[in-house]
Amino acid sequence: MAVYTEIADEELTDFIAGYDMGAVLSLKGIAEGVENSNFLLRAEAGSFILTLYEKRVNPDDLPFFIGLMQHLAARGVNCPLPVKNRAGEALGELAGRPACIVTFLDGVSVRKPGVGHCRELGVALAGLHQAADGFALSRPNALGVAGWRPLFDAAAGRADDIAPGLGARIGAALAEAEANWPRGLPTGVIHADLFTDNVFFIGPKLSGVIDFYFACNDALAYDVAICLNAWCFEADGSFNLTKGQALLAGYQSVRRLTPEEVAALPLLCRGAALRFLLTRLVDWLNVPPGVLVKPKDPLEYDRKLAFHRGVISASDYGLAA
Amino acid sequence: MAVYTEIADEELTDFIAGYDMGAVLSLKGIAEGVENSNFLLRAEAGSFILTLYEKRVNPDDLPFFIGLMQHLAARGVNCPLPVKNRAGEALGELAGRPACIVTFLDGVSVRKPGVGHCRELGVALAGLHQAADGFALSRPNALGVAGWRPLFDAAAGRADDIAPGLGARIGAALAEAEANWPRGLPTGVIHADLFTDNVFFIGPKLSGVIDFYFACNDALAYDVAICLNAWCFEADGSFNLTKGQALLAGYQSVRRLTPEEVAALPLLCRGAALRFLLTRLVDWLNVPPGVLVKPKDPLEYDRKLAFHRGVISASDYGLAA
Repeated sequence: MAVYTEIADEELTDFIAGYDMGAVLSLKGIAEGVENSNFLLRAEAGSFILTLYEKRVNPDDLPFFIGLMQHLAARGVNCPLPVKNRAGEALGELAGRPACIVTFLDGVSVRKPGVGHCRELGVALAGLHQAADGFALSRPNALGVAGWRPLFDAAAGRADDIAPGLGARIGAALAEAEANWPRGLPTGVIHADLFTDNVFFIGPKLSGVIDFYFACNDALAYDVAICLNAWCFEADGSFNLTKGQALLAGYQSVRRLTPEEVAALPLLCRGAALRFLLTRLVDWLNVPPGVLVKPKDPLEYDRKLAFHRGVISASDYGLAA
Repeated sequence: MAVYTEIADEELTDFIAGYDMGAVLSLKGIAEGVENSNFLLRAEAGSFILTLYEKRVNPDDLPFFIGLMQHLAARGVNCPLPVKNRAGEALGELAGRPACIVTFLDGVSVRKPGVGHCRELGVALAGLHQAADGFALSRPNALGVAGWRPLFDAAAGRADDIAPGLGARIGAALAEAEANWPRGLPTGVIHADLFTDNVFFIGPKLSGVIDFYFACNDALAYDVAICLNAWCFEADGSFNLTKGQALLAGYQSVRRLTPEEVAALPLLCRGAALRFLLTRLVDWLNVPPGVLVKPKDPLEYDRKLAFHRGVISASDYGLAA
């Protein structure tokens, strides 16, 4: 929920005049995206999303994000396609910010995904991994295992204010992840933030994937682990094995996990839970005054981590033997 | 900027199933409207705005607002048309709130209106006054002259914290308005909040008027006074006579002001400035903690009121002799 930047009339008109999309018919700030300002732009040529990149996005990363969407869209992934202006550039400047116009994707994100949604998601995730193959640019995962200890250091002293023993639980999970994090798994470009609000459906069919602003190079199976965390738990904290089966079967219908990935899945799931627990904890402890958006509950991922600690093998997530 | 209510998947699907608009293609919360939650809804039948009425709107007023839009749209005013569901009802319930779907209007609001925009606005305002004639329902103006003293009482003690002498200036203007407020002017349904963000343009042409949630029965010329305040001052506080001329000429090209309205215009302009000064002052002094939206500056209307105090007759606003 974010429209941080107001755009002056003349600036907008001048900016759009650089594109081959006719006159502006409508521009509405939309309550989507936490990092950037997003506007739904209707022009004579159709509907688009105009994004102004705010401070939390590193401008140096923009060629990676924009190039990735171009690469994926060219390979048939239903993701936003950055629109080039008359000069052939997809990245411009508006209201003093880096700015990009992308195509509008129809679809609605589901707040409570069903089994069918999870299968569709698994298929799409594997398709995304395959389509990203060959993308020329790369970007390290700033929120990978090496990035977790600095987050913990920033929050450890106050973690127990949120829940008793939370600091110790995180510390143990972090030490285990650092000691045992799997190396040598198949890597590639991962989405790294494929939560339900970044996936659109029309009826039961997945219609699009958005928000590539955490995408990076990392183990492909880590992306699967993020999705198991984000899609297969119920509101009461329980793991829905049927949804896990559907997600993993959907994924494997396109790309089979290697034996090493299968063996690593429980640890990757603990790591993924830890990553979101840590970032949510830091956000929770650092809410700026005057902010309307309520930070997401870190303890949701403390409960998920507890489930993962009891997992013995990937079959506990629903992986078919 | 407001999306106060989240809508569950099934609730939305059920709600839309009551309308003859096909499947939902997209639903995005939009940063528009301070009082309600607004969503841009794309369905197979087209684009719509879905509004959930939050606490600040009195449900008893909804038949007036919705009926007014229906009345106006039927008479050719480019305003949102409430869409009826299969049961013939335009007002429903969603996520525990009164809810209404209206047609989507193309157009962009201008932040800095030019002379041409002011003329278009004047024409549209008079057209709106004429089209509203014959509307069966009525609604008193809760923010009319009788409503100003309670606002002042709520804020008077702290007014001087905002600017020295502000309380005395408001008190004097309020006493004058109460003593001399014109009676017997032509009345009808007025928009009462026709600021630039409630008027859409496509290029130079006015394409639509939205947000009828302050509409009420009052003196038609008071609506003109509100628009002179909202459209004809520059950012530095100066009154742009050319814009005033354009607005008034546009209005009179459709509906001529009576001699009584012309004579009352300076007092009506002072009253309109006082009304927005008071509501902004109360909002400014009562910002709830945790709110992102910055309240609008009350002193903008203190400066406008100062200009109006120097006005001798309607010709000072640009009214042709």
